[in-house]
Amino acid sequence: MNSRVVTACLIIIGNEILSGRTQDANAAFFATALNDIGVRLREVRVIPDDEAIIVETVNAVRPRFDYVFTTGGIGPTHDDITASSIARAFGVALVLDPEARDRLDRAYQARGQEFNEARLRMAYIPEGATLIDNPISAAPGFQIGNVFVMAGVPSVARAMFHGMKHRLAGGQPMLQRTITCRLSEGLIAHALAEIQQAAPEVEIGSYPAWTDEGPRVSLVMTGTDQALLEAAALEIAAMIRGFGGEPVGG
Amino acid sequence: MNSRVVTACLIIIGNEILSGRTQDANAAFFATALNDIGVRLREVRVIPDDEAIIVETVNAVRPRFDYVFTTGGIGPTHDDITASSIARAFGVALVLDPEARDRLDRAYQARGQEFNEARLRMAYIPEGATLIDNPISAAPGFQIGNVFVMAGVPSVARAMFHGMKHRLAGGQPMLQRTITCRLSEGLIAHALAEIQQAAPEVEIGSYPAWTDEGPRVSLVMTGTDQALLEAAALEIAAMIRGFGGEPVGG
Repeated sequence: MNSRVVTACLIIIGNEILSGRTQDANAAFFATALNDIGVRLREVRVIPDDEAIIVETVNAVRPRFDYVFTTGGIGPTHDDITASSIARAFGVALVLDPEARDRLDRAYQARGQEFNEARLRMAYIPEGATLIDNPISAAPGFQIGNVFVMAGVPSVARAMFHGMKHRLAGGQPMLQRTITCRLSEGLIAHALAEIQQAAPEVEIGSYPAWTDEGPRVSLVMTGTDQALLEAAALEIAAMIRGFGGEPVGG
Repeated sequence: MNSRVVTACLIIIGNEILSGRTQDANAAFFATALNDIGVRLREVRVIPDDEAIIVETVNAVRPRFDYVFTTGGIGPTHDDITASSIARAFGVALVLDPEARDRLDRAYQARGQEFNEARLRMAYIPEGATLIDNPISAAPGFQIGNVFVMAGVPSVARAMFHGMKHRLAGGQPMLQRTITCRLSEGLIAHALAEIQQAAPEVEIGSYPAWTDEGPRVSLVMTGTDQALLEAAALEIAAMIRGFGGEPVGG
């Protein structure tokens, strides 16, 4: 663990998200799981299954973040073009990985299914990449440079992540506290800004909502120092009481 | 309506999404609502509440898409920096909009709330921008060039979109059909690729899932021509029956 900020970008490759057919579930998982090991997710991009766009996006973000994760497009069908696109982004060949082939061979034998040519596609990875285990459906992901290529199916992406997260060098985990009250955001905005100015190491976010009982606002404190978070939480609770509100949580 | 493809990019501005605290609901809404009027969502970016990143992202995407939508960061608190960041991206001043001020004034009078300095911030928009109505909480969004700045709260974002979508010139709406079967994706991959090759105007996506009853795959056909979609659906259904499966839907 080190004290600098370790950053990540998630690239979600999938026409099904961009068409609205499927609600993405991977962004929230990676955000939380990365934060737990001290890596901050700083950007998410959802892009189509399009080789030129995948190549351009991967090459745009990989110098800018410590880690890049992709989800989607590593299955056996014609629309699964992530592995070949990543190979092109790195300027390397797509090669048959004997270990990946053996894993798939064993898995299909165990299931009594044919290991056909389409399924063999899933054993091809960019030259120089290392495998990421897939304990659910055998077809592996892979790592090349700082890019980690994972499945799009959320259960598989999660299993892959938990199997490879030891490879990641994290920084300090971000801690978070939330205080909610039934005051209007605009009423407390000025006082809240003063608390933020006095506590620059705590990032304070304000998230309003409108309920049947009237306005509500969630004040979210984020930072790496537990004592500073607690001090900010006390300030915020006192501020809320000063406006006649009742702080909840903290 | 015209026949060329009209494209859009959605920029979700929000630390709360990147921290995993909040599950985004706007991407799926914009994907569907844009498609209904013939605009294809081609990219989504989730970025932090950071002026430099907002400016860079907006300026990177606005020449590349017909329309850019942003959600988040237009409230009264210190972390609401979208309007000033967009002004900077366009190189214009942030100015008090008299109409926006009047709307807010009326709304706060009606609610018996004070129209204080923090709330007045929500009446500032980039010079040359036009307002986007907010029928829920009064504070308007705005349009400048091809960039549409909306609220982050999903109910408000939706109301804003429905009030301004007549400003968008759409192309042909994308139509979609889905056929599901209980076959393994790898079994049908080769035959599916042949159907795709023979029907280049229909985009066929393959989405596997693993259920307690075994594998399942959803085959999603997307295109602008109803007759071509139906022909592809018939081919896919016949292919599934050829493998001993039972096509559902279509």
